[in-house]
Amino acid sequence: MNKAEIVEFFDQEFPHYDKISIDQVGKLTATIRHRIGKQELRPGGTVAGPVSMLLADVVIYVAILGELGRVPLTVTTSLNINFLRKPSAESDLIAHCKLIKVGRTLVVGEVDLYSEGKPDLVAHVVGTYAVPPVNNR
Amino acid sequence: MNKAEIVEFFDQEFPHYDKISIDQVGKLTATIRHRIGKQELRPGGTVAGPVSMLLADVVIYVAILGELGRVPLTVTTSLNINFLRKPSAESDLIAHCKLIKVGRTLVVGEVDLYSEGKPDLVAHVVGTYAVPPVNNR
Amino acid sequence: MNKAEIVEFFDQEFPHYDKISIDQVGKLTATIRHRIGKQELRPGGTVAGPVSMLLADVVIYVAILGELGRVPLTVTTSLNINFLRKPSAESDLIAHCKLIKVGRTLVVGEVDLYSEGKPDLVAHVVGTYAVPPVNNR
Amino acid sequence: MNKAEIVEFFDQEFPHYDKISIDQVGKLTATIRHRIGKQELRPGGTVAGPVSMLLADVVIYVAILGELGRVPLTVTTSLNINFLRKPSAESDLIAHCKLIKVGRTLVVGEVDLYSEGKPDLVAHVVGTYAVPPVNNR
Repeated sequence: MNKAEIVEFFDQEFPHYDKISIDQVGKLTATIRHRIGKQELRPGGTVAGPVSMLLADVVIYVAILGELGRVPLTVTTSLNINFLRKPSAESDLIAHCKLIKVGRTLVVGEVDLYSEGKPDLVAHVVGTYAVPPVNNR
Repeated sequence: MNKAEIVEFFDQEFPHYDKISIDQVGKLTATIRHRIGKQELRPGGTVAGPVSMLLADVVIYVAILGELGRVPLTVTTSLNINFLRKPSAESDLIAHCKLIKVGRTLVVGEVDLYSEGKPDLVAHVVGTYAVPPVNNR
Repeated sequence: MNKAEIVEFFDQEFPHYDKISIDQVGKLTATIRHRIGKQELRPGGTVAGPVSMLLADVVIYVAILGELGRVPLTVTTSLNINFLRKPSAESDLIAHCKLIKVGRTLVVGEVDLYSEGKPDLVAHVVGTYAVPPVNNR
Repeated sequence: MNKAEIVEFFDQEFPHYDKISIDQVGKLTATIRHRIGKQELRPGGTVAGPVSMLLADVVIYVAILGELGRVPLTVTTSLNINFLRKPSAESDLIAHCKLIKVGRTLVVGEVDLYSEGKPDLVAHVVGTYAVPPVNNR
């Protein structure tokens, strides 16, 4: 699927992800962003951790859609996140995914998260998705 | 903090977590639940992964509040989730946390997630929170 | 495989694991131990982290052998360890595994590590192994 | 510490790591390698997972020594590894670490593992070390 097709798929299937938008879908990569408002902030003005986890999970899915197309039964099997720095409360949260393995039944993606305009990582994620075996796709 | 105090704290600080409720807060443990409706489901009728991650992150926080009280600057430093089985689309998602370490600066919690009324785990989580050193609490 | 068969298998295939011994193999569980000597210690007298990782990886494998038998092509796909407390330099390191999922292609095990005779966990592990699909076993 | 100092430190403190050698230590990075022989192989000719875990744990430590010097009480707090491809049984296993956070009490490193001469990752690791607070170093 190309970017336009994935955007349309998300509009249909995940209408409540209306604060997430897709920046780019490329060869084994994808970049998406989440608008940050009051609802995404925790006391102290930091972005709530689950927003980062959601965004990381979604960007890996977007990269898989870009690589394999709309594969049914694609599900997250594990996700490991390390929170590194406090994200900005004023900027979009950006997630960039690179698929480091596209296997027969498992896909592994690595995700860098940062606040727009700042170079330092705010979080780092590795996630795995199970995909149906090639001959069932 | 006891359960009533934590419920009040969440009502004030996290009003948008209105689908989450707190079942119990005990010695190094906590149990909470998330109501499941259309918004929590992904195509195929499974509960979206980020709902489980959110719930796990929150239940560890609840257990920390129960153990240490309202400690400022408590933040998630890492979270590792393994998705094991498809949750029920009809039942509340329940998260039970046990703190396996309450250290000087790090707290580690283990979380079992399951659909209400079914014994099998749907996901398993280990999460760590940074807390301020004891003499700054 | 029962315990005696697994012990024999390890003697043949992993003769250099001569400091590891198998305590029990049960329904979805296994317990093994590692003798601790000078070579396992790091400066400061703590057990080197890789010894815990090795032991956790092996105990999940033992539990899988007990559950599924000698399945070829069984390989670790991920392992997440949290170090919680300093192990004793004087005691055996013990690892107890419980398989929390035995799926069609993935097995997930949770492991508690502790120093013999002390109740507190020194480390906690979740590991996943890929196993061949059921019809190829 | 520079590379020569770290090599000397390892010769003294970890003489049994005699199959590991240090290739480079740079700004927030380090690269080390493990010779692969019969003892490192599992049935099927693959490099045993614990060798990769050991190497990843050590390379993060080397990068920390390069960045912070010989800090006492530096200990691994967590390590997450994803095995991606079968390493070569004929080539050295190489680990390259980049520190993605050097915080007040936590250091986080990301590690790429590959077989010498082959570009594809065989494993990917994220590990965290606790270091003493800056004013105690």
